[in-house]
Order: sequence, then C-alpha cells, then structure tokens
Amino acid sequence: MKLLSDVGEDALIAALIAHMPQFDAKSAQPSDDCAVLSQADFYLTDLLLKTDAMIEGIHFTQEMSARAIGWKAIARVSSDFAAMGGQPHSFMVTVALPASTSLAWIEEVYQGMADCMHAFGGKLVGGETSRMPLGAPCVFSISALGTVPKNRAMLRSTAKPGDVIFVTGKLGGSFAGKHLSFSPRIEHGRWLLDHFRVTAMMDLSDGIAKDLPRMAQASDCGFQLDLTAIPFTTGCGLNEALHDGEDYELLLAVAPSDAGNLLEVWGVRFPELPLTRIGHFVKAGSGDVLSGGWDHFPAV
Amino acid sequence: MKLLSDVGEDALIAALIAHMPQFDAKSAQPSDDCAVLSQADFYLTDLLLKTDAMIEGIHFTQEMSARAIGWKAIARVSSDFAAMGGQPHSFMVTVALPASTSLAWIEEVYQGMADCMHAFGGKLVGGETSRMPLGAPCVFSISALGTVPKNRAMLRSTAKPGDVIFVTGKLGGSFAGKHLSFSPRIEHGRWLLDHFRVTAMMDLSDGIAKDLPRMAQASDCGFQLDLTAIPFTTGCGLNEALHDGEDYELLLAVAPSDAGNLLEVWGVRFPELPLTRIGHFVKAGSGDVLSGGWDHFPAV
Repeated sequence: MKLLSDVGEDALIAALIAHMPQFDAKSAQPSDDCAVLSQADFYLTDLLLKTDAMIEGIHFTQEMSARAIGWKAIARVSSDFAAMGGQPHSFMVTVALPASTSLAWIEEVYQGMADCMHAFGGKLVGGETSRMPLGAPCVFSISALGTVPKNRAMLRSTAKPGDVIFVTGKLGGSFAGKHLSFSPRIEHGRWLLDHFRVTAMMDLSDGIAKDLPRMAQASDCGFQLDLTAIPFTTGCGLNEALHDGEDYELLLAVAPSDAGNLLEVWGVRFPELPLTRIGHFVKAGSGDVLSGGWDHFPAV
Repeated sequence: MKLLSDVGEDALIAALIAHMPQFDAKSAQPSDDCAVLSQADFYLTDLLLKTDAMIEGIHFTQEMSARAIGWKAIARVSSDFAAMGGQPHSFMVTVALPASTSLAWIEEVYQGMADCMHAFGGKLVGGETSRMPLGAPCVFSISALGTVPKNRAMLRSTAKPGDVIFVTGKLGGSFAGKHLSFSPRIEHGRWLLDHFRVTAMMDLSDGIAKDLPRMAQASDCGFQLDLTAIPFTTGCGLNEALHDGEDYELLLAVAPSDAGNLLEVWGVRFPELPLTRIGHFVKAGSGDVLSGGWDHFPAV
C-alpha cells in the first residue's frame, strides 16, 4: 500500500485535485500564492482566497509565545496576499483543540491574531472551534478573503527570460525566531503593483532554494543567481539564506529596462527595507540548478 | 488554570473573539450559518463565507467509507449556504495528515468531495496539504465562498412572535449512517428565498433541541413546539429526532398568513421532501424549554 511518505507533496496534490471540479485556469494556478476569482467586468476588484494551517509539533510548540503564534498564523496568510499585490479583507479562524487546552493560552493566541489584523488589515468574519481527541496536537486553520485591483493580481508564472530578479529584506535565520515576528509586505506589494511593471511575484515561504526554482518553472524559464549578492540576516550565512525558509519576503521580477529605476525609487520610498538584485531569468533548460527547502511529504 | 473543559463552547467563542477586529454587525451575527459580506450597491450578489472542520475520532473514523467522509465534508458547508438561501461558489480544502496515511484512502476522500461539488455546485480553488505528527488524527478543514442575491441572505435572528415554524425532511437517525449521505438543501433554500417571505432560516446541525432554542434566542423570541408533529426517521423515536443532531434539514419561520400557502405549494414543487409545521414562535420569556444536543466543550 502506498503511503504519503512514499510520494512528494507536489505529487500528492496533483493526485488529489485531478478529479475535482475546477475553474478554467485563465490566470492563477494551484501553485500561486492565492486563488484569484475574477468578478464580472463592472466590478472594481478581484477576490483572492487563501487557506493556511498551523499545527502544533510541526509549525509551533507550546514553548513559543502564544501571542507570536497567533501573529504568525494571520501574518502568513497576509504575506500571500502581499505577494499578489493584494490586501486582506476577511478572516475565518478554525481552531481544533483538546479539552485539556488552557483558556488563557488560546486567548493569548487570538490576541496575537488580533494584533496582526490591526497592523496589516482584515477583520474576523467567522470560524469554528472544534474538539480534538486528548493528546492530539492543536491545529489552527486560517482562511481569508483578500482583494486586488481588477485584472492586476501578480502571478509567479509570468516572468520572462532576461527579467531581473529582486528580493526584499534579508534571508535566513527563521529558526532563531524571525519566523514568529515577521511583517507581511502588504504595503510594499501594493506599491509595486501601483508603480512598477512587475512581471512576476511571490512570497518566500520555503526558502529561496525551493521558491526561486518554482517561479522559474511556473514561468517556463531558467535562472542565474548571483550567490554573492544574496542578502542574509546578521548571524546567518549563505546556506541559511538559501534553505531555512519562512522568510516571508517578496521575490519579484522586472524587465531589465526597469531594474535601475526600481532600485532608485525603492530606496527613497522604503529606506528601511533593502531591495536587492540577485540574478536574472534565462531560457528554460539553461542556467543554474538549486534544490533543497521544505517539503511536507518528502518522497523517499 | 482554567481549561477548555471548564467552559462551554459558546463562552469560549465569546472570549476568543472579544478583541478581534470585526465588521459592524449589521446583518449576520457570529452565530449565523455563514458570514455575509455586503458588496457595494451596484453589485448583484452578497458573498457568504463559511469554514468547517472534520476531525478523525470526533467527526469520522477510518472504519467509515472514505468517499462518504469526503462527501460529508463538502455537504456540511453547502448546507450552511442552503440555510441562507445561497449557493456554493468556491471551496478551499486543507488536509493535515500523518505521513503514514494511505494515498488510496485520501484519494477516495477527495473523490467524495468531488462527488458533492458535482451534485450541488461549487469548484475547488485552493487548499493545502500539511503533515501531522505520527499518531495524530487526520484533520480536514473546508473553507468556502458562496453567493446569495444582494440583501436577501436569510438569517436566524429575524423570526417574530407568531411566526409558524417548519422543518424539512425527517429528523433523527444520524448515527445510523444518515450523517454521511445527506443532501444539502441548496435547491430548496433558494426556492424559498425566491418564492416566499421566509422570516428566519437555519440548518439543523446539532439537533432541533439545541438549534430551535438558538433561533429563538437570536430572534429574541420564545417558542411552542408541537412534539406530536415532529417528523422522525423510520426506526427513530422522538428522543432521537430531538437530540441526535446532524440532520442537515432546514428549520424556517414564516408569517402565519403565509403558512397554509407554503405547505400547499411546497407539496406540489417538492413532493419527495416533506415540509412539516412543528410549532410557532411566541414572546421572549414565554413558551417551552428545550435543552440537549451537541456541545464541543460542554461546561462541567
């Protein structure tokens, strides 16, 4: 009998969704950061949908700050909206908890969720509390609706050979705590959408070593990465910057003719957040090879 | 230290959402079947949002049909849309599974989900697969977006004293298998919205003994129930009909002047599904008292 431990996460997803009713894939693909629902022509926005789970023993432990766990649960989803140039609108929070859970602990988690909504937008519209068997882990499942100006959602599949690759912030070091306190790049994503012809964008959740090849593959490109240019967090090296994951920074591509202008204007508008040119896309089948990063069900 | 086992589910929810950013409660309340997002005046529909979890050992076991488990996961959410007169539009499916899960089993579950979407509408737009620690239960969290004609979503909080109470189908017997194979009343809910002034509606998920008092309280009414009129499933008695839960039938109220006409037209339009008059609403503080039904975190 084949077990999930025998197949990779991507193969699992492909098998599961093969027979599901799905919308025609006009724009966003299952691999994009959010689903994009196009509304009728006279509507002003498209809708973004995203769901994301946090599981005790996998994504967090009881030793971490409860408030930070709540912050992270909302910030992860908000980061996916940011990656498309969108904004969070409404959240639904599902919690599945053993009856032995402390009330004060779960209230702290919700306070952290509220902190992130106050800081980056979105409101609670629904959810569910459900019981887990005793001894089972706590599970949070966050679902959210976002908005993005009509026909403007940025995808990861639209980079072109020659496009310059940029990354925001500094990479690596998530294990040291950054993964609990990051800021989703909502404002930056929206600014890029309003002011620049970004050709492709996504957020970095599994490490650039895994996410950049994903963007390249989705865009039918190869890539060349300048390893000496990768910006890494103080205390980290290149290896951590490539593989740690959970950076929640933006990875984006622009046409070569826009690259210099973007760097200049960005530095004036967002002096506190570095934007770094780290390589460029090339034709499919050429360029560098990178691997690693996080897989929930690594094939053996 | 206070544990979840020391507070009831309703008190837990109230504590958790107290400090969350929320929309002004103009129409739907947290207790309604779905969240209702009103769109700008020139939009034709309002949006419904709903999330619902299924947990191994609580809502299902591995001994049940995998395909039926998938059906139920989608049908439960669809039933909440039906309860507001709405229709499912898009689904996101989150699965959290130990790596020891059989691939064939989870594929069967997804096939059951697809069956229900094909039968009652809605398409897959996103989701997530995540790993659970070994030995932990499988968790499915379904989130969905639905639509309802603008300003027409039916609520549970709008019944008036004097309104007649109806229920569709027959109640009780969920434990014997009905809870895995029910049909969400999408078509019936929409027909009611289009053809009758229904004053309040909800679906029966926790047993009429728990859900009818909820509708009454939300509407600031009492109720009188004709126990001899409750329609119960063959093989069940009144006790099962009141308390089993998971009926997924519609509970609705109409003005007394509409009651006779509704019964007559319903019988012609839906001869296969009984509609039964089971009582009426009265002023708050008077009428019957009912208790029982399902509570995830019963207060001790």
